[in-house]
Amino acid sequence: MKIITLGPAGTYGHEATEAVLDWLFLEHSVKPDIEFVPRNIEILNSVSKTQNLGVVPIENSTEGLVSEVIKGFWLRQADNEVARPPIYVVGETKIPIRHQLLVHPSINRIEELTAVASHTQALGQCKENLDRLGLMIRKPTNSTAAAAQSVANDLAFRTTGAIASRFAGKVYGLKALQENLEDFPGNATRFHIVGPAPKRTVSENNRTALLFWVPNKPRSLLNALWSIGMEEVNMSSIHSIPLGSRGQYAFYCEFDCHTKTDVGRKIIERMRTVVDRLFILGSYPQEIDEGKEVNNAG
Amino acid sequence: MKIITLGPAGTYGHEATEAVLDWLFLEHSVKPDIEFVPRNIEILNSVSKTQNLGVVPIENSTEGLVSEVIKGFWLRQADNEVARPPIYVVGETKIPIRHQLLVHPSINRIEELTAVASHTQALGQCKENLDRLGLMIRKPTNSTAAAAQSVANDLAFRTTGAIASRFAGKVYGLKALQENLEDFPGNATRFHIVGPAPKRTVSENNRTALLFWVPNKPRSLLNALWSIGMEEVNMSSIHSIPLGSRGQYAFYCEFDCHTKTDVGRKIIERMRTVVDRLFILGSYPQEIDEGKEVNNAG
Repeated sequence: MKIITLGPAGTYGHEATEAVLDWLFLEHSVKPDIEFVPRNIEILNSVSKTQNLGVVPIENSTEGLVSEVIKGFWLRQADNEVARPPIYVVGETKIPIRHQLLVHPSINRIEELTAVASHTQALGQCKENLDRLGLMIRKPTNSTAAAAQSVANDLAFRTTGAIASRFAGKVYGLKALQENLEDFPGNATRFHIVGPAPKRTVSENNRTALLFWVPNKPRSLLNALWSIGMEEVNMSSIHSIPLGSRGQYAFYCEFDCHTKTDVGRKIIERMRTVVDRLFILGSYPQEIDEGKEVNNAG
Repeated sequence: MKIITLGPAGTYGHEATEAVLDWLFLEHSVKPDIEFVPRNIEILNSVSKTQNLGVVPIENSTEGLVSEVIKGFWLRQADNEVARPPIYVVGETKIPIRHQLLVHPSINRIEELTAVASHTQALGQCKENLDRLGLMIRKPTNSTAAAAQSVANDLAFRTTGAIASRFAGKVYGLKALQENLEDFPGNATRFHIVGPAPKRTVSENNRTALLFWVPNKPRSLLNALWSIGMEEVNMSSIHSIPLGSRGQYAFYCEFDCHTKTDVGRKIIERMRTVVDRLFILGSYPQEIDEGKEVNNAG
């Protein structure tokens, strides 16, 4: 058995996967191996082909919904393609996004650096601080982890700093010259654990993820959301998905309840009467943390 | 007077800006100059500082909402900072995203290429087709336009292809070896035209963009959306914004009506009674096109 996530080693997805392994396989003596693939969409491809588990980012507190992943779910559900078996959400975990300035162990001071490398998104998130540090030459890479990997292994990157996580620094044996380099702190990414079959066990705090299409009529969305609201169940996420062509407006939604409870069954039953199509991506234990955002918006 | 957008020349933002200039300044003999800045957030900074117009991406049909821009609006509205005067949405335009394989004029065949350069997002969107063409070496750049610029001006990029728009190819005098290189066609980005003052003229087909915060109580979001739905007005976009910390759940919403009409005034009046905070980003003529997506979800 394997668990598939975004590579190379040291991505935030890898970090989330290690957290999932610690928690999901706590009492197992043998943990599944981690397999790295280069794109999020390939995690979904691989999970549906190989019947393994996968870990994908779903929502970032500043970047929003990860539409590439939503689209992957959608392609596997809405198209009913035999070649693309559906994928289910079986869990979630949240990772704080904190960037460090990582350097080769032979570098001691920022002044020795000639450039800084990272994914364009991370370079953007740290722009003000990098300007302040005088690191004006930016090299874009395919991921934050790829930048750390280059600094560790590529002689041409010896005097380049990498913007990546503390975790990536550990993976590649790099030194952190600066911590919390992001201009706006408090960023976090929520990851979904995905698998080839839905999770059927009901735990204490559950969440359900679903995709639905509403008919092109006034108040259709309101009717769908009312199914959740009238049960006094919290809705934790709602996003309209502009699919481009006519009649293809869909919604991604999460609410805090399992579909195998009485309340959950009622919500789904009522929803089916007002939406055109409904795909339950899965019910799973929600990650509870201290400063947890609860929005009773449903 | 200037109009500010994402640089370098040849970005999809630049293309949208040219479309805006043709349309907004149709009857003017002198058009404003375009000023390029390197990040979307700097377009907002510059607009609020210089009182010029700007063009920013707001929603992409596959990538979803551009959260960086929403966050920029939010910082300027919710924080009430004198240093960051509010910005208003005064118009919108939509640009199809179609990638071409652009090469230096001296290159005649794909076999002469040794690599391909573009923004990681564009490289991702064309992955299958690039694999099929045997272009396995990918160079990430800060934007699609930056890739085209390098191919045109940098000797080290002479045998590298750029993934960018037909528009970028024209700007840099490059040759297109392949068209429509994206793996999933039909992608488009909607841009907002932003300015230092709200647009007050009511035209035929209007849209209103707003940000609101709902109290942490059951059915709060439903009450807010009901304000729109009971007037039988279409809602064209709704997104929950996870701001990370407790009690900071916000929503971005668009509905198809001007706030200076009777119906619009009623919607806003009713909304104010059920939300914690409400910021009207602007009412503006909506872009109508043939295959337009209309979602009567409100």
